[in-house]
Amino acid sequence: MTEQRITATYEIETAFPLDQAAATMAGEQSTGTFVRVPGETDELREAHAARVEAIEEFGDVAAPSLPGSGLPKDGGDGRRRRARVVLSWPLSNMGPSLPNLLATIAGNLSELKAFSGLKLTDIVLPPAFLDRYQGPQFGVEGTRRLTGVYDRPIVGTIIKPSVGLSPDATAEQVRVLVEAGVDFIKDDELQADGPHCPFDARIAAVMRVINDHADRTGRKVMYAANLTGDVDEMLARHDHVVANGGTCIMASMNSIGLPAMKQLRAHSRLPIHGHRNGWGMLGRSPALGMSFIAYQKLWRLAGIDHTHVNGIDNKFCEPNDSVIASARECLTPMFDPPHQGCEIIPVFSSGQSVRQAAPTYAALGSVDCMFAAGGGIMAHPGGPAAGVRALRQAWDAAIAGAAVEEAAKDSPELKAALGAFGG
Amino acid sequence: MTEQRITATYEIETAFPLDQAAATMAGEQSTGTFVRVPGETDELREAHAARVEAIEEFGDVAAPSLPGSGLPKDGGDGRRRRARVVLSWPLSNMGPSLPNLLATIAGNLSELKAFSGLKLTDIVLPPAFLDRYQGPQFGVEGTRRLTGVYDRPIVGTIIKPSVGLSPDATAEQVRVLVEAGVDFIKDDELQADGPHCPFDARIAAVMRVINDHADRTGRKVMYAANLTGDVDEMLARHDHVVANGGTCIMASMNSIGLPAMKQLRAHSRLPIHGHRNGWGMLGRSPALGMSFIAYQKLWRLAGIDHTHVNGIDNKFCEPNDSVIASARECLTPMFDPPHQGCEIIPVFSSGQSVRQAAPTYAALGSVDCMFAAGGGIMAHPGGPAAGVRALRQAWDAAIAGAAVEEAAKDSPELKAALGAFGG
Repeated sequence: MTEQRITATYEIETAFPLDQAAATMAGEQSTGTFVRVPGETDELREAHAARVEAIEEFGDVAAPSLPGSGLPKDGGDGRRRRARVVLSWPLSNMGPSLPNLLATIAGNLSELKAFSGLKLTDIVLPPAFLDRYQGPQFGVEGTRRLTGVYDRPIVGTIIKPSVGLSPDATAEQVRVLVEAGVDFIKDDELQADGPHCPFDARIAAVMRVINDHADRTGRKVMYAANLTGDVDEMLARHDHVVANGGTCIMASMNSIGLPAMKQLRAHSRLPIHGHRNGWGMLGRSPALGMSFIAYQKLWRLAGIDHTHVNGIDNKFCEPNDSVIASARECLTPMFDPPHQGCEIIPVFSSGQSVRQAAPTYAALGSVDCMFAAGGGIMAHPGGPAAGVRALRQAWDAAIAGAAVEEAAKDSPELKAALGAFGG
Repeated sequence: MTEQRITATYEIETAFPLDQAAATMAGEQSTGTFVRVPGETDELREAHAARVEAIEEFGDVAAPSLPGSGLPKDGGDGRRRRARVVLSWPLSNMGPSLPNLLATIAGNLSELKAFSGLKLTDIVLPPAFLDRYQGPQFGVEGTRRLTGVYDRPIVGTIIKPSVGLSPDATAEQVRVLVEAGVDFIKDDELQADGPHCPFDARIAAVMRVINDHADRTGRKVMYAANLTGDVDEMLARHDHVVANGGTCIMASMNSIGLPAMKQLRAHSRLPIHGHRNGWGMLGRSPALGMSFIAYQKLWRLAGIDHTHVNGIDNKFCEPNDSVIASARECLTPMFDPPHQGCEIIPVFSSGQSVRQAAPTYAALGSVDCMFAAGGGIMAHPGGPAAGVRALRQAWDAAIAGAAVEEAAKDSPELKAALGAFGG
């Protein structure tokens, strides 16, 4: 039987020959020592050393992307090679443990002097991780079942202003949004349990509105209640959401960490909306950190059901090809059958309007997503209900393969939206 | 009564006028919305908006440090200004919650298009956080009490090779090290509970050696057992360490997250050695992420007792001034009396030898630190015991204000170390 291995891909920049640089990475993150010690036998290296699986050179850059590396005194040769390097480790080095995986694939590597750039771009994990991690509990199908939305994106929005509304004022905002016809509403990531808007009071007030609306219409809007906090707080808040008839919880992934997410997932009876705020710190530099492709795999295993991928022509720095690659990855199985694939719902947001429906559908090739708009709904000239109708019309057109301008001829709300949200 | 506020300092790079850029930061992380909504009243802004406390311009740079920002279509003016910006928030926005603090001070900020660089460099928190977080349980004094080491650095070392030793082979390494006279030994961050070296078996084997040595000599060496894992695992492993007479636990901070650390601290009866592996991802870029100064404050509140600061002339990329600033910060109170200061022990490591004792002492101005050496002990020509003696002699000389070369005249181990570990 072949031992299960963990594989990680990096993009590096180095002033050393590539085979030497890759060997440094492998050594530092497994059996290597600066000074050879007696215990480091050949058998030990054979069984536990990380392996360099592939090196693909990209060409040189003129100047180092990060400081502190490859100086003449450290032996660099002045060139700055870029390359993709693939390493693998035997699972027996760390076992199927996400926290310890992280120390191995993303620990001290990025501080090594041999590298003026080092970014983790992908990981491939053996299914043994599914013995210890539950993966998403609801995913695409479970979220569709709870929202009652099929064959089109789940249209979402966020409560604004982010901070400052009282529980009752929040519920009033929610009333406007559910009456406008949205499928999904989320708290802002800045709003969790601040003294001016306590979690329990906010959720109680908001769920009264959502439950009343569901009683009248038969449609229960999904509300992602931001329960980010310490572990005991999150578990108690989850129970409060359940007790009030809520159908979703939200947590900021970077704020809580993988072990807390695992614990929340084990406890939860609701889908987990994983908010990626802070990912820019890890992901924005091309020379450092971690791609969202690698990052989201860790959190899917830990149990999230939805995550944010930004949106086409977003108001942040992320380019469209990166947004779409992230979104497609969320829908791509992590493991082959018979194992679960851990697919989750990508959430498009940030400056989204009727203009982004067609290009998003064309690039994603699927309607399995959330499409969240703030101003795109609230700032519609005909009001929020017209804003929601316009978004649905834009997606209907995209799915039917019709140009949005053509569709607008028969859809006054869409026409007004195209006028309001400039091309 | 003045409301307690949270203050955060950033270094930014922007193609927009600085007052506009700072207002964008404050707006995005508090009451701001891209489209003004009805709920955003003047009263709400007055009570909850983040405040720009200070802007200090540094001058322009030629090219953007990060991509995706300030393009002509986004309204940038072509200049790239660098500046320090200080923002503050009322505590009532998020309450004294570290996870929610993180979403506020380090959430989506670094992805904003207005910035081609944005790094969090410091935070100042109100003492209300001490109502919810316990801070270090042992700190400097408690660690000295458990090790029995006073008036000099605690001399430490790490078990190598990092990965691959069985529990018994690990214990044999520990035997060599305790007999050599070290005060402190730590697991490698790659070694936690892998199938080839299970935690429980390793700790039992290692503690037999340490307990035997303590019975014979009266000196109990502190062993930082790396219990990094999921929450239930960490709590159980802590209990196993206690049951085996251990006096320290270690966890990789980035792997476990703040809520898990809080839970571990609440449960723990032992000092927590906080390992910062992976910090390079957050800290190495001058244009992105978080300084260690800001970072370590979060973890001190959450409850660590020791943390790594690299070392002078280390084998990683960090410059010496950054190393020393981090170390001094660990010893600087976070809160004024009567509140606890949450001081912790800085751990110097990475390529440390007798050569670094004097410059480290001169720069730190204190002996309240751990000084960890691997090769500097194991590769001493006279063996590990001579290696430990040489390190202690080097520190004795530094504390006495004597030049190391002078002190070596009366100290054969120090003389041999100076020969072996070139200047």
